[in-house]
Amino acid sequence: MTGRYIAIEGIDGAGKTTVAEAVVESLRNDGHRVELVREPGGTRIGEAIRQIVLHSDDDLSPWSEALLFAAARAQLAQEVVAPLLAEGVWVVTDRSVFSSLAYQGAGRGLGVETVREVNAPGLGDAWPDLVILLALDAAEGLSRQGDPDRIGGAGVELQQRVADAYSGLAKEPSFATVDARGSFEAVVQDCLEVIRERW
Amino acid sequence: MTGRYIAIEGIDGAGKTTVAEAVVESLRNDGHRVELVREPGGTRIGEAIRQIVLHSDDDLSPWSEALLFAAARAQLAQEVVAPLLAEGVWVVTDRSVFSSLAYQGAGRGLGVETVREVNAPGLGDAWPDLVILLALDAAEGLSRQGDPDRIGGAGVELQQRVADAYSGLAKEPSFATVDARGSFEAVVQDCLEVIRERW
Repeated sequence: MTGRYIAIEGIDGAGKTTVAEAVVESLRNDGHRVELVREPGGTRIGEAIRQIVLHSDDDLSPWSEALLFAAARAQLAQEVVAPLLAEGVWVVTDRSVFSSLAYQGAGRGLGVETVREVNAPGLGDAWPDLVILLALDAAEGLSRQGDPDRIGGAGVELQQRVADAYSGLAKEPSFATVDARGSFEAVVQDCLEVIRERW
Repeated sequence: MTGRYIAIEGIDGAGKTTVAEAVVESLRNDGHRVELVREPGGTRIGEAIRQIVLHSDDDLSPWSEALLFAAARAQLAQEVVAPLLAEGVWVVTDRSVFSSLAYQGAGRGLGVETVREVNAPGLGDAWPDLVILLALDAAEGLSRQGDPDRIGGAGVELQQRVADAYSGLAKEPSFATVDARGSFEAVVQDCLEVIRERW
């Protein structure tokens, strides 16, 4: 018995966190056992790493940032995600390894494939089965943001590179794209349809 | 003008820290501009990472540990080591990427070459020019340790795998081996001779 691993992805302001919460609630109402996690974080060690990454000054080097995200992710995979999936629990994650491919790989210019390779050994089999991309304009994403953290504050050029990277990644078979411009209820319904079509 | 990057390596108890300090002092007396750094740490971000790694409970996954060390190292390389070398300053480091190859790659069983590949992008050109291995028995290293931290406390089997990995790495051209069983003064003199032979 193996659960499903579903990632909610998209640029800052796309609504990932609230959508992920609503998707989890709906899947539970459908009778699934579902847990919600978030990256970076989701474990005690991951939360400590999250504090370093999100609240460091701008002197964090791009590769250090990418490796810190990878470390938090490896911990989450081994401590939480893999055991849940093995028990048949579905896991919905607010961000995933694909955030690193988009933000560090493309946004910071480290290379999407190089970042994928650095993350691969720590993830083992715990790659998302399904990635739902909440697709949104870079400019609209920024305009929606209230209190941007360090990464969210880095400007529209970064957001545009990230949005373009997500568009490229969305061609991979594990991806499904949902238009994030609709109402909150519509976006959640679209996500649930994608999930119900798969399984 | 480019400085030299010299790593002092070896198992816990080999005397790396005190030897590195004495080597730096002697090189300064020779008229070199020399800075001492240590891994993990050496930067504000690296010290925060060091706290997570060395003082986490035993629930830190091996890959998370390896990626945290790599993140601290990438930060040190970009923020400290590369700029110093570019100015012609010599840098002596207490541990280096080769500690990860030995401890995480061999000791924790992640694979020496896989750990090398994960570290490579973040280091760029900042690999040690010379690695001095303070060679010591696993059992003798353990008996010398006063207050072992989490890693040092993991037992003689781990230390033996690490010692064996160092022996294998010592065949690489950047390595020189110094017998760490001698007196402190003799070990420091041997290290200085290795350095003076190279440059």
